[in-house]
Amino acid sequence: MDHVGTTGPSRDLLPVTGAWQPGDPVGQRRFVDIAAHHPFAVESGAMLRRVDLAYETWGTLAPDASNAVLVCHAWTGDSHAAGRAGPGHGAPGWWDDLIGPGKAIDTERWFVVCANVLGGCQGSTGPASPHPDDGRPYGSRFPVVTIRDMVRAQVRLMDHLGVRRWHAVIGGSMGGMQVLEWAITFPERVASIVPIATCLQATAQQIAWGAIGRRAIRLDPRWRGGDYYDAPPGEGPWEGLAIARQVAQVTFRSDNSFTERFGRELAEVGEYGDTFDLWQRFEVERYLDYHGEKLVRRFDANSYLVIGKAMDLHDVARGRGSLEAAMRRIHVPSLSIGISSDMLYPAYQQQRIHELLTQQGVPSRYHEIHSPHGHDAFLINHDQIVEPIARFLDHVPLG
Amino acid sequence: MDHVGTTGPSRDLLPVTGAWQPGDPVGQRRFVDIAAHHPFAVESGAMLRRVDLAYETWGTLAPDASNAVLVCHAWTGDSHAAGRAGPGHGAPGWWDDLIGPGKAIDTERWFVVCANVLGGCQGSTGPASPHPDDGRPYGSRFPVVTIRDMVRAQVRLMDHLGVRRWHAVIGGSMGGMQVLEWAITFPERVASIVPIATCLQATAQQIAWGAIGRRAIRLDPRWRGGDYYDAPPGEGPWEGLAIARQVAQVTFRSDNSFTERFGRELAEVGEYGDTFDLWQRFEVERYLDYHGEKLVRRFDANSYLVIGKAMDLHDVARGRGSLEAAMRRIHVPSLSIGISSDMLYPAYQQQRIHELLTQQGVPSRYHEIHSPHGHDAFLINHDQIVEPIARFLDHVPLG
Repeated sequence: MDHVGTTGPSRDLLPVTGAWQPGDPVGQRRFVDIAAHHPFAVESGAMLRRVDLAYETWGTLAPDASNAVLVCHAWTGDSHAAGRAGPGHGAPGWWDDLIGPGKAIDTERWFVVCANVLGGCQGSTGPASPHPDDGRPYGSRFPVVTIRDMVRAQVRLMDHLGVRRWHAVIGGSMGGMQVLEWAITFPERVASIVPIATCLQATAQQIAWGAIGRRAIRLDPRWRGGDYYDAPPGEGPWEGLAIARQVAQVTFRSDNSFTERFGRELAEVGEYGDTFDLWQRFEVERYLDYHGEKLVRRFDANSYLVIGKAMDLHDVARGRGSLEAAMRRIHVPSLSIGISSDMLYPAYQQQRIHELLTQQGVPSRYHEIHSPHGHDAFLINHDQIVEPIARFLDHVPLG
Repeated sequence: MDHVGTTGPSRDLLPVTGAWQPGDPVGQRRFVDIAAHHPFAVESGAMLRRVDLAYETWGTLAPDASNAVLVCHAWTGDSHAAGRAGPGHGAPGWWDDLIGPGKAIDTERWFVVCANVLGGCQGSTGPASPHPDDGRPYGSRFPVVTIRDMVRAQVRLMDHLGVRRWHAVIGGSMGGMQVLEWAITFPERVASIVPIATCLQATAQQIAWGAIGRRAIRLDPRWRGGDYYDAPPGEGPWEGLAIARQVAQVTFRSDNSFTERFGRELAEVGEYGDTFDLWQRFEVERYLDYHGEKLVRRFDANSYLVIGKAMDLHDVARGRGSLEAAMRRIHVPSLSIGISSDMLYPAYQQQRIHELLTQQGVPSRYHEIHSPHGHDAFLINHDQIVEPIARFLDHVPLG
């Protein structure tokens, strides 16, 4: 029952945190301390004296600032929504197919902004960032934040950029949660919204998946209650974070796509040359290990906890009476996009957004991505959203 | 980020193993050492010199032994398919609604048998059992076993009982895997089959869920490579086993049933009286913790690993050329039962069993349980299977 070939020979070298850290290549990032003029209070009550937001922009802001589009990233995404891989950016932009000159979100026309969320680990202030009191990582001292906190931080970025009103706020999954909170909390600062594969409030099943992942991180003795940053390489909570990621990875895809791609193939022949070792891996396990390890190299376990909790706390109705009352604050055109095979944020949740808006007379459209790929289809089947998004942006009156 | 109210005050008292052990009340169990006359070789190559099977029976075997029905249990089930809770049995029989005088599987007519599987922990030989060499628990020394091994062990029990041919072999989930292997491996010893919420071969997604649970157990430092039996109470791998169970528990139910039952209710107010503590639980998390802890009290972590691996290895085609070739060995009537909301063993998998049998001219029927409860519906919506099963048993010619 020993660890036969579980994660490959590189295991001991896995970083303690995959967070971007001062001194790392900045790449396309710009930074602003949105708490420089007044501290930033989060919903949980904590006061942050310094809040860096790492953000990127593409295109040129029009003189009247009417052409700004905000793109919001998902759980483990970051500000690098478009552009190449290179120093500071381990991968090409996660929506590079959609954002650029002549693309759906045409940067010859739109000034596109994407910021790493508060609590994240790719340049924005999060648990791996230095605490202003002592310069050591926040770790267990970092507060719980909410989607609303993320959005309120982005409002200060918006002011910094001189944008009065976003022509559109667009995002999938947790990005879509931000989209909804933008339109509900700051209706006067948003001209249109595109929520994708997201929900009005996290369901019990979504919370369950998130909570199980957090328990796996907590179980890892190398998590050390959240204060692991001074551990040597390989001694961070890589294994708990990898398991948490694996839970998510299965919910991001679908039964059919897994069967199609992996079936019952074995990843390797066991130590004893047979198929009967407890830890011998099927190909799908190798895939899960790969994705777990890949995330460990570019993410921070505490950020994973904090952002996951923010998603569980997502509920546009909180403090607003009801879902209906919250949604009545939205008066701008909406394009809600669902995915036929999404098991994590099933299409009924995006249809519900569309229904509520339609009921109150808001111009709303629902578009469904037909895909076998599950939740991740919004990052895969770009061909199915290029045209609807481009057309939607065209038809929203310029603010 | 500390453990606020995660599993309640009883945590330190959780047993190192929930396995039944010699000296515990036997309850309704009977025992037979099926290796007493000749050792039992498992598919992985290991030779077991002693294999106790704990089993229970209900009703009376007819003089011609024509009325015997085998019921096969699922992953964490055991031999107590019917009967009350009491000493030796922590809960009433898991199918007590279906098995008994005048019930669907009428014990005034049928002689019903249910055995704890090989590798289990409720009286049958498994990782918590004493190794014949030294009397200490097998632990990491226990071999990988397969569904076929479980069935081959049951053949010896059958011989011991004097049954030549089962009138029917019935089971759900892993029980259904045994049902299929019974009919394919020993076609002459089975007169009919009722596979429920099961599959012909574990899919990549099913393997993924199982593997993630096993990784959580392995991550628990108290698992100690599988040799944890001499640890003091509270120092067994309860946390890893609980997480593994929680992964399974979500897949056993459904999005709708979780929303209906838990919604976004909070389980408790956090230490600071707010809803913003990282470890404050939603009601669904309390439910998951409850089910994790409940399993820890009645199950063994190594049995969970071994049985889970057996399910991942389940493939009726293995060594038989193809699914079709394997299924061509079945010549007896079949009632395949699926569940409309099953996300773990989706209904298409049971329809496929029915289709393959129908194609080769075997009398086969498909019945679907319409339920919001997901995979567990075969243990919940008894009302929907009582009549189909009773009628099916009636119409199979007595052997």
